[in-house]
Amino acid sequence: MVYQATASAPVNIACIKYWGKRDTKLILPTNDSLSVTLDQDHLRSTTTSRADPSFTKDRLWLNGTEEEIKPNGRTATCIAEMKRLRADLEAEKPNEPKLSQFYVHIASKNNFPTAAGLASSASGFAALVKSLASLYQLPSTPSELSLIARQGSGSACRSLFGGFVAWEMGSSPDGSDSLAVEIAPREHWPEIHALICVVSDDKKGTSSTSGMQRTVETSTLLQHRIKHVVPERMKVISEAIKKRDFNTFAKITMQDSNQFHAVALDTDPPIFYMNDVSRAIISLIVEYNRVSVDAGGPLKAAYTYDAGPNAVIYTLKENVKEIVELVVNYFPQANQFKDPFGLFGSDGVQGNVVTGFNTAVAKPFGVGAVKNLIHTRVGDGPRTLGPEESLLGVEGLP
Amino acid sequence: MVYQATASAPVNIACIKYWGKRDTKLILPTNDSLSVTLDQDHLRSTTTSRADPSFTKDRLWLNGTEEEIKPNGRTATCIAEMKRLRADLEAEKPNEPKLSQFYVHIASKNNFPTAAGLASSASGFAALVKSLASLYQLPSTPSELSLIARQGSGSACRSLFGGFVAWEMGSSPDGSDSLAVEIAPREHWPEIHALICVVSDDKKGTSSTSGMQRTVETSTLLQHRIKHVVPERMKVISEAIKKRDFNTFAKITMQDSNQFHAVALDTDPPIFYMNDVSRAIISLIVEYNRVSVDAGGPLKAAYTYDAGPNAVIYTLKENVKEIVELVVNYFPQANQFKDPFGLFGSDGVQGNVVTGFNTAVAKPFGVGAVKNLIHTRVGDGPRTLGPEESLLGVEGLP
Repeated sequence: MVYQATASAPVNIACIKYWGKRDTKLILPTNDSLSVTLDQDHLRSTTTSRADPSFTKDRLWLNGTEEEIKPNGRTATCIAEMKRLRADLEAEKPNEPKLSQFYVHIASKNNFPTAAGLASSASGFAALVKSLASLYQLPSTPSELSLIARQGSGSACRSLFGGFVAWEMGSSPDGSDSLAVEIAPREHWPEIHALICVVSDDKKGTSSTSGMQRTVETSTLLQHRIKHVVPERMKVISEAIKKRDFNTFAKITMQDSNQFHAVALDTDPPIFYMNDVSRAIISLIVEYNRVSVDAGGPLKAAYTYDAGPNAVIYTLKENVKEIVELVVNYFPQANQFKDPFGLFGSDGVQGNVVTGFNTAVAKPFGVGAVKNLIHTRVGDGPRTLGPEESLLGVEGLP
Repeated sequence: MVYQATASAPVNIACIKYWGKRDTKLILPTNDSLSVTLDQDHLRSTTTSRADPSFTKDRLWLNGTEEEIKPNGRTATCIAEMKRLRADLEAEKPNEPKLSQFYVHIASKNNFPTAAGLASSASGFAALVKSLASLYQLPSTPSELSLIARQGSGSACRSLFGGFVAWEMGSSPDGSDSLAVEIAPREHWPEIHALICVVSDDKKGTSSTSGMQRTVETSTLLQHRIKHVVPERMKVISEAIKKRDFNTFAKITMQDSNQFHAVALDTDPPIFYMNDVSRAIISLIVEYNRVSVDAGGPLKAAYTYDAGPNAVIYTLKENVKEIVELVVNYFPQANQFKDPFGLFGSDGVQGNVVTGFNTAVAKPFGVGAVKNLIHTRVGDGPRTLGPEESLLGVEGLP
């Protein structure tokens, strides 16, 4: 009998940013956060987990390369927590096989290159937890699983749901109420699309793990953000999502991206994640929105930046074509735009600019400044996949 | 009889930044600020003012070009205020000529090119006020004159003193207590030197006048800075100056530069003044300090950035040579370093890096990224100059 399961999990990109832990071991954050789950059809981590009495230790392969599972490290913690849930189930149902006592082999891969500069820890830990939950046939809800994924990588907890997801910081010292909840499923607002601009960076940035704790220790503005700004923004953006109010959603998303980078800059020594290319993309989106607002319309796009120079632009599906044209005008692409939604005909992207746009807001960059454009949309939560998707061979090795 | 006077005034660069007005007409700030006055031997504005009954209106020339004096504008306000002080004096001393009733001709020039990217409004308004004070033979103290220069350009009030200068925000609605005071004269700590890195910028930045009001209106962090952070920093840095404690002076200076740019970024839409070159200079100074601190020493240099990409690096005289070498290593110069203090022999700058410096913290840039390096030091307050320095000819024209 082979005990094995395969699952995939999505990437999520926050609108209200997580930056700062109140407990670094349990990964308990200093504020609530909120994200949009992106479509696994375009970006995903896939993980196969197998339990077998013949295995001699827990082992993990990432993209085909074995990685050490450090004792008491984050991966070990997630595996131990999942085994504990399985043991609880076995205690209740004595006829179930004692999988909790077997070692596991886990193989995981991402369908996007590391070079894309997209954080894979969120989708990776979510897929790990989901595949183990399937292997162990646990009745756990996504929120319950999010408690465990959170201990792998904080933002991974939000990848246990599709759609629009909040990570509630909670108040319990043991972390039992610091979990993800669904604000709205993807079906509520499927028109939310995302354009990821992969920005070339020649500077090694500060890791988010060390960076956020330096901010907690040295920024004199962070506490004000945590106590007064984020709680209000969480309310307003949750309401905006429920009402499908893109204008408010965009405004809060941009403000919170800016404020996250502001507190990073208020850190000693300061932390910079955005570079001149990131700044130029902000200028384009600000001007693109100005044209709409000056004509009496709403904000049409929202930029957001995580701990790196890449831009994620949220917009409604109807605006994606204009935005791709705009970005390509300033950031010529080496490769043809991969057009998963068939927006462009055989002529491809022309680099057109919307009427009334002040082209002087940014200077054009050379090919490669924006290395790649990825068009995706709001997506669903983790999926349990069939055995044909297995990443482990007959021997239980990749 | 010719009634004329010529004065020069220095540039100042803030360590605690002024950003935000509570009264835009009177130019009353939302927080105290503190600056170092730079040496007029290197950077100065010079202004000649003449009063004559034959003049038919107030006129102003900047660097040889006539500028309109807008009714109720900032220059008109300063001239009117100075005439009012003269009228008070004439009322007390009836034998004095009635200069307050004559129109004035004013010619001003800067000894640094506009292309240097250095704000000339501070030195310019300070020189204007000082030359009129000399012309009118006013007994006013520098603090009293600072009240008037402040209405020309906020930070100009700090250029009425040499050395280390605080602008006390005051509390009176009429602005009568929003003035500059001396924290310490240049002689107290003459070892404070400054290296200005003039950074090339291809993006037109947001003017500080409009930028700071957008921050006041939209930043959710600014009020916390104003109420809680700046008052504490003013105390700590004033003490550090009195004790000649460079380590603390440097720490607060860098933190406050970072926080000013953080609240600019927290503005909606965000305001960026620093670019990739500015960021790279920060990385160099952070690493330069790390080498010293890791060896048990103090911070040796402090960067600070105003509303533009130029870096001003404060350091003690003994460290300037190392810092010039370091900057030139990463930012090769088109022109030979102008060496006003004779630090370098005939070989010039070699681009050496201090032992233990991790050169990977920044990548080298091409010639022109840093256009110019200006070495100067803490300087004295406005000077009254002799008639040989006059910028007006016999006819009262430049």
